[in-house]
Amino acid sequence: MKDILPEEMEIRDYVEATVRRVYAGYGFQHIETPVVEHIENLCSDQGGENEKLIFKVMKRGEKLDIAGAKGENDLADSGLRYDLTLPLSRYYSNNNQILTMPFKALQIGNVFRADRPQKGRFRQFKQCDIDIIGDPSDLAEIELLNATTALLSELGFSGFRVRINDRRLLKAMGQYAGFDEAALPEIFIILDKMDKIGLEGVEQELKASGYDEEGIRKYLELFKDKDDTQEGIRRIGELLGDNVPEGVTDDLIEIFSAVNEIKSGDFRLSFDPTLVRGMGYYTGTIFEIEMEEFGSSVAGGGRYDGMIGRFTGQNVPACGFSIGFERIITILMDKGFKIPDASSKTAFLIEKGVSAEKLASIMSEAQELRKRGETVLIARMAKNRKFQKDNLERSGYTSFKDYYRE
Amino acid sequence: MKDILPEEMEIRDYVEATVRRVYAGYGFQHIETPVVEHIENLCSDQGGENEKLIFKVMKRGEKLDIAGAKGENDLADSGLRYDLTLPLSRYYSNNNQILTMPFKALQIGNVFRADRPQKGRFRQFKQCDIDIIGDPSDLAEIELLNATTALLSELGFSGFRVRINDRRLLKAMGQYAGFDEAALPEIFIILDKMDKIGLEGVEQELKASGYDEEGIRKYLELFKDKDDTQEGIRRIGELLGDNVPEGVTDDLIEIFSAVNEIKSGDFRLSFDPTLVRGMGYYTGTIFEIEMEEFGSSVAGGGRYDGMIGRFTGQNVPACGFSIGFERIITILMDKGFKIPDASSKTAFLIEKGVSAEKLASIMSEAQELRKRGETVLIARMAKNRKFQKDNLERSGYTSFKDYYRE
Repeated sequence: MKDILPEEMEIRDYVEATVRRVYAGYGFQHIETPVVEHIENLCSDQGGENEKLIFKVMKRGEKLDIAGAKGENDLADSGLRYDLTLPLSRYYSNNNQILTMPFKALQIGNVFRADRPQKGRFRQFKQCDIDIIGDPSDLAEIELLNATTALLSELGFSGFRVRINDRRLLKAMGQYAGFDEAALPEIFIILDKMDKIGLEGVEQELKASGYDEEGIRKYLELFKDKDDTQEGIRRIGELLGDNVPEGVTDDLIEIFSAVNEIKSGDFRLSFDPTLVRGMGYYTGTIFEIEMEEFGSSVAGGGRYDGMIGRFTGQNVPACGFSIGFERIITILMDKGFKIPDASSKTAFLIEKGVSAEKLASIMSEAQELRKRGETVLIARMAKNRKFQKDNLERSGYTSFKDYYRE
Repeated sequence: MKDILPEEMEIRDYVEATVRRVYAGYGFQHIETPVVEHIENLCSDQGGENEKLIFKVMKRGEKLDIAGAKGENDLADSGLRYDLTLPLSRYYSNNNQILTMPFKALQIGNVFRADRPQKGRFRQFKQCDIDIIGDPSDLAEIELLNATTALLSELGFSGFRVRINDRRLLKAMGQYAGFDEAALPEIFIILDKMDKIGLEGVEQELKASGYDEEGIRKYLELFKDKDDTQEGIRRIGELLGDNVPEGVTDDLIEIFSAVNEIKSGDFRLSFDPTLVRGMGYYTGTIFEIEMEEFGSSVAGGGRYDGMIGRFTGQNVPACGFSIGFERIITILMDKGFKIPDASSKTAFLIEKGVSAEKLASIMSEAQELRKRGETVLIARMAKNRKFQKDNLERSGYTSFKDYYRE
């Protein structure tokens, strides 16, 4: 876990403020959940691999029975959240009676994973999620995509690629090729490597795993057409025929055209039938944003209609988009990002011994500038004034005023 | 620990943004430390009673040896921070080589205490601290007081009382009365009750504790003069004579006059020789802000020149002011606080089946409004439209546009 230094913090604050402002325009309501959750919620099998990485918080007082403990779960009653989706589901289930429907939530918060620390990855890191709960229609996807692309554009990003697909289409493609439903998870893991190993690599791996040659041929045929426009969606929909549930391709086309028509920014919307996304809880549309120049995905999401029902007992449609806050910050820092319209910074350096009267007038002058939005630092004049000014210049102070005693 | 609902979150975000804006004007730099700290730092005896309330985080993997554990400290290697002062000291000690001096830090962050939950008190709560590290002069106190009073005024508070005193003056008053230095902590605890039990109550408790009658008389004489202006400081300074270290009363008077001259807001600055403040680490000036109408203190701070040296090994002057973020939020909520210049909120309700063309034009219209800073919610028209609109009105939507399919 890392300390955040002032220079980075300025950029983080700017990005957070932009996130709040842009998403508020779409009616997303900022909410917050505690960083500590009950251990039973965290270990409910929704979190996949992340559940192995939970920081567990010890029971306290009489509840802590070390001698009688058989395993670590006897010692812990809570833990630090590893994502924001699970706490959101619990939040919705606790508070849905008083929330506006559909509930459009914005969360910006720290999550914790006891991962082996690596360069650029920390055990405490910030996530930034928007979710729409209670809207079964494709308007939810359209709003999520418009809001997220508008945000990235507002932060100065352009030329990125928004990949979009649907889990039901993925399943239909498998069925069309004649694969067993039970085999699909493994097939998806192989398909997901398309970017790295290409069509031939995927073919080899499928063969190596012993799938039917004719099935593989039929399956890979689907990905040979590289038409990533809405025409591509229509074509694949026609090919798959009854394997696709009704409305799935129409909705995907509607999402595609609505987002493309508005185009909140300079990016490429791209239908990608090979997009899989890891999390098991997705049930419909899935999307991911890639910035090729930085060699990585910076945002991802999709529809997860089944998850909230596990808390509420009632099926509730839900759809979310998460941006990798830390990734965005790293890219901005590497680009040498400068905050637009940063306020001017002046330092007033005051010699010890100025009269009370003079001090008051200096302070008044500073207050006036501050009221106009400027930053004024007031400090005692140091013995080594050159050192003091160099130091302040590195922190962005561009003008200085010296006040001596009479 | 509590979930934060959208209505409260809007106010919290507004207050946080105001905190950042106002304090940035004074050159405070926003920083952040992880919520998890090493257990040795947390249990270093600086935190007093709070150390008993630490949420401890369990060791993981091979490091966790349940069978061999003798006590809970064998099972935990870290814990959740219980305040922001200790992490700041560690932060400064790790990073001081690259920080601007004097280092003016702003922290807004959650802290955790395993307290028995009570009405209005939670186990996770936000604190908001400003600290100036490396400035031994009274300019630090002046800046802290000006910034904090300006912030409270900006948030719409007025008529509050800023009490100010000095630990060295407190000590000198005890010496002047002839009390043993070893007895002073107990005497301060009794003196601290002056607000509640009055001069007579304090007299009785001191007598009951067996202190010398003549000493008590001499001591209480000091508090009979209710002059809380800078004249009162001067008078008490003269009375105490050599018992007060040189410069202490002069500095306190300078702070008093500088803050009073500028008066960033409508409040009363009040010298209070009975102000004690609990934390043992204060070494000089101490201050507290009281809002009588809400029967509580909302901010407090002081100089703690000794603390950082325990981390760095070198004495470093430091001075801080903490506002009770949760208290401020509760007061604003109770007052029915409305955010100034909140953006207008419109809901576009769309019937299922509108054409792709029409949907795109609706979306464009929404984007235009959003670019102008307005909030536009886009949702499917519900079957029960009255219910839908009532629900949205409660969330602050004041205008509605219905879009039907042709």
